[in-house]
Amino acid sequence: MLEKSLADLYRGYIDCLNFQDWENLGTYVEQDVRYNGQMVGLYGYRQAREAEFRAIPDLHFDVQILIADDTTVASRLNFNISPQGMFLGLPVNGRRISFSENVFYEFAEGKIANVWSIVDKAAIEAQLSAA
Amino acid sequence: MLEKSLADLYRGYIDCLNFQDWENLGTYVEQDVRYNGQMVGLYGYRQAREAEFRAIPDLHFDVQILIADDTTVASRLNFNISPQGMFLGLPVNGRRISFSENVFYEFAEGKIANVWSIVDKAAIEAQLSAA
Repeated sequence: MLEKSLADLYRGYIDCLNFQDWENLGTYVEQDVRYNGQMVGLYGYRQAREAEFRAIPDLHFDVQILIADDTTVASRLNFNISPQGMFLGLPVNGRRISFSENVFYEFAEGKIANVWSIVDKAAIEAQLSAA
Repeated sequence: MLEKSLADLYRGYIDCLNFQDWENLGTYVEQDVRYNGQMVGLYGYRQAREAEFRAIPDLHFDVQILIADDTTVASRLNFNISPQGMFLGLPVNGRRISFSENVFYEFAEGKIANVWSIVDKAAIEAQLSAA
């Protein structure tokens, strides 16, 4: 049952992002959260997500695959979005692009403590060069 | 117990790769395996892995995170390797680079049927541009 509850908790986190419910982000994310090995903290984490929504007005997190054990969630997220200007160092400039992110979340006491994210930059490059 | 066995099966698959035990790859991988949505088949899958070991003599798969449910394995793999020549379109030319791959494997009847892989190309680019 613990596994199910971590998956449910994660879906709550994704809803929190999609609703831009920043006041409740701390329900899901630890104060000392690390992102790809770097301490960013809840405030930095929130700032980064808010900046993403400003740069990508149609940003939406869509879960394709979700598995969880007692301490860790793994998720494949799909995006079909239109980042303004540069995105991941690439001149996307408002084009609609589709790509995925494969990401692991290690939880501590019910909150996200470590995020290990990889975005499929190569897929975006392929779409830009095909244009 | 099923979960544990899928994780164990996956570790067998990783050993199979690290030992380059190609004759046994079909123990772990389906005939009709798909890679990032494309049908490659067991033979194509084996050819791709063999080509990687030729291009990367010190290739080694190292599991950092592994979680599994009844049908799916998620794994974060770490690499500390020296690809010869071009790698993912980047001029690595034998430099030692460290990066990760976050990858999902959907199983059917005990074999890998779908692979959803993302390699951290941005991390490699950062190492090359810092050189």
